[in-house]
Amino acid sequence: MKPDLLLTNIGQVATLEGHSDSPKVGAQMNDVSVIDNGAIAIKDGKIVAIGPTKDVLSQVTEEPRLPAIEFPGMLATPGFVDSHTHLAFAGSRERDFAMKLAGKTYLEILEAGGGILNTLRSTRLASQGDLVANAFSYAESMLSMGTTTIEAKSGYGLDTENELKMLRAVDELREKLPLNLISTFLGAHAIPPEFEGRTDAYVDLVIDEMIPAVAKSSLAEFCDVFCEQGVFDIEQSRKILLAARGKGMKLKIHADEIVQLGGANLAAEVGAVSADHLLRASEEGLEAMRKAGTIATLLPATAFSLDTDYADARGMIEMGLPVALATDFNPNCANESLFFTIALACYKMKMKPQEALSAVTINAAHALNRGSTHGSIEEGKVADILILDCPNPEYLTWRFGVNLVHTVISNGQVIHTKLGP
Amino acid sequence: MKPDLLLTNIGQVATLEGHSDSPKVGAQMNDVSVIDNGAIAIKDGKIVAIGPTKDVLSQVTEEPRLPAIEFPGMLATPGFVDSHTHLAFAGSRERDFAMKLAGKTYLEILEAGGGILNTLRSTRLASQGDLVANAFSYAESMLSMGTTTIEAKSGYGLDTENELKMLRAVDELREKLPLNLISTFLGAHAIPPEFEGRTDAYVDLVIDEMIPAVAKSSLAEFCDVFCEQGVFDIEQSRKILLAARGKGMKLKIHADEIVQLGGANLAAEVGAVSADHLLRASEEGLEAMRKAGTIATLLPATAFSLDTDYADARGMIEMGLPVALATDFNPNCANESLFFTIALACYKMKMKPQEALSAVTINAAHALNRGSTHGSIEEGKVADILILDCPNPEYLTWRFGVNLVHTVISNGQVIHTKLGP
Repeated sequence: MKPDLLLTNIGQVATLEGHSDSPKVGAQMNDVSVIDNGAIAIKDGKIVAIGPTKDVLSQVTEEPRLPAIEFPGMLATPGFVDSHTHLAFAGSRERDFAMKLAGKTYLEILEAGGGILNTLRSTRLASQGDLVANAFSYAESMLSMGTTTIEAKSGYGLDTENELKMLRAVDELREKLPLNLISTFLGAHAIPPEFEGRTDAYVDLVIDEMIPAVAKSSLAEFCDVFCEQGVFDIEQSRKILLAARGKGMKLKIHADEIVQLGGANLAAEVGAVSADHLLRASEEGLEAMRKAGTIATLLPATAFSLDTDYADARGMIEMGLPVALATDFNPNCANESLFFTIALACYKMKMKPQEALSAVTINAAHALNRGSTHGSIEEGKVADILILDCPNPEYLTWRFGVNLVHTVISNGQVIHTKLGP
Repeated sequence: MKPDLLLTNIGQVATLEGHSDSPKVGAQMNDVSVIDNGAIAIKDGKIVAIGPTKDVLSQVTEEPRLPAIEFPGMLATPGFVDSHTHLAFAGSRERDFAMKLAGKTYLEILEAGGGILNTLRSTRLASQGDLVANAFSYAESMLSMGTTTIEAKSGYGLDTENELKMLRAVDELREKLPLNLISTFLGAHAIPPEFEGRTDAYVDLVIDEMIPAVAKSSLAEFCDVFCEQGVFDIEQSRKILLAARGKGMKLKIHADEIVQLGGANLAAEVGAVSADHLLRASEEGLEAMRKAGTIATLLPATAFSLDTDYADARGMIEMGLPVALATDFNPNCANESLFFTIALACYKMKMKPQEALSAVTINAAHALNRGSTHGSIEEGKVADILILDCPNPEYLTWRFGVNLVHTVISNGQVIHTKLGP
């Protein structure tokens, strides 16, 4: 075997292996499958060998295309998967922060014309090219911090034309950056001003016009709904999700973030791949998710930015729910660093570093229906690999909240590295 | 005038001017003195002109040595000043995190042989070269995140030889990195195991042997004490600080972090330049500091990592205390990003972005007795300047917790930039 790229003498490799079929739950999340002094061989964008360095070298029969690179003392992990972001939007929202400082809540800022409606106006006015340029700068930053797979939601257009424009912008970005982008249609993110007081009419528009148009365009793999008090209630959310499912889309839901509406139960009922936020989810809702195999995606940076408490990650892990972590990067929580999210997960939600690592790799890949191809370092999987300036997984919580990336390999290509010339 | 370096058309320049003589207090902290479309001319490592671009250009009579660089849409600020770090030490402490997860407090981890005593052992075993190598990697990371002035404390040697070794390591680092390092002697950081139960005897060693040796070496400008229950009490702290003052050293104190011992009052009494932490400081202690002109240095990343509440920044600002912010980078809080600290200051301590910016620039410079030379962009000051990928100071809180540095200029030299070739 003649690899394109050969990484050897890696201090530790956390492979996260053995869970391509289903996400990690319970104690599995605390085992990231560490190989000491590991090596990884890559060919045609795929991992072709992984194991202790001497075992991998014995499989390499021809010199690799590039000289082997050694990473002693460092940690290799799968590329991070950010399974919940609102990557594409126009404008920034620094002025909302003054309202937050004055003690206004998310819903109060929304009512004051700030928040999402502000971004809606900017995004409708923006060209597709503007959206691509903005999203590019955010995605490039994510990539430099080790995120190689990004889910990107629409949801700031809120009419058919502008939702499609957002999805096309993400699609255009695919050609411009070496990362794996997965699109989600979130037409039901807020009620646009022209439908104020007529939520049901807007729901009809989403179901009758937007979902068919998005499905026809093949621009989104998932459909998501912001199921929340004052936004879309359970019945409206159910109708939208079922309509999307009917068109072959997979489902996600913003569930039980601020008020306990029963979003977790709904996620289980409609077979959503993930339910996200879950700060106020009921035990019974979480139990329904567990039985349905719905992944709990926790977004602690949002709780940080809203200055609320955090989701009960420990309780969810202990009851056997698969937990994923994501940034929720969006104009209301503009932090794109999964290292920041991991810091919050460990220091505030009391997750162990290994659990956090499982949650941003294999479990997050499952939350995007990519568990069989991404999220772990295993033969045959896409070669998305990080080399971190970090000797072991525990160190991730010691040196918290900063970018520990040394080298990013995406789809088999070295795209960011601190290696000298 | 022929500048070495000319920066023009900078979207906004936050100069922080007018406070070279004394730190900002109260409402002054909320005014960072913004110039729109600004320019900065630099010569011989100093700022020689600052103002609106057209005004600066009218003073430039000869072409600059390098072509002028334009930064439209960006924000220039003074280089960040991190006025409280424990930069030099050996070993890492990821294992302590498991104890934290199990609910142990800082003092309990200390009693279990973890914490600072762990670092003490590693640091005593380390060579000066080992310490330089470690500190280099942390300082380089700080520099890439905009910190151009760093205070570095000793305090993991805890005997004369090893304390001097730490200070020499910081001194050696001065030649290796283009940043401004200020050393603090912190022999009274903990009681070393060989003095267990004999704190007074250790205090005598600090006073009779260490302080004279450090003063003679000229390796430290400041003396600091960890005044805390179970460490050094008020009387012991007072003796040490007065002895250091007697040798011409300026003073700092770790005050009222975990238990209200009266460290704030002591800081005022001995004329300390700053008192740091202050989570439990009494109103009367803070009032004494205000009258004495002692700066309140707040370290929210430590509170984050210990999962405690935060210091009362709002109360301190409102009573007219000058507030500085620093990372407290140390083996118990290994986050070296002032962007992270600013995020905590704004989101958790309810500081305004402009207040936070004042607190990491001019006020932090005053906390290191460098207000007349650093911490603001003014004619005659050292040319430590950041260009941030950020249109205005408020944006710092919108895009929170990530490195927004585009270009770092330290001592007049461009040492880090995202500018293309």
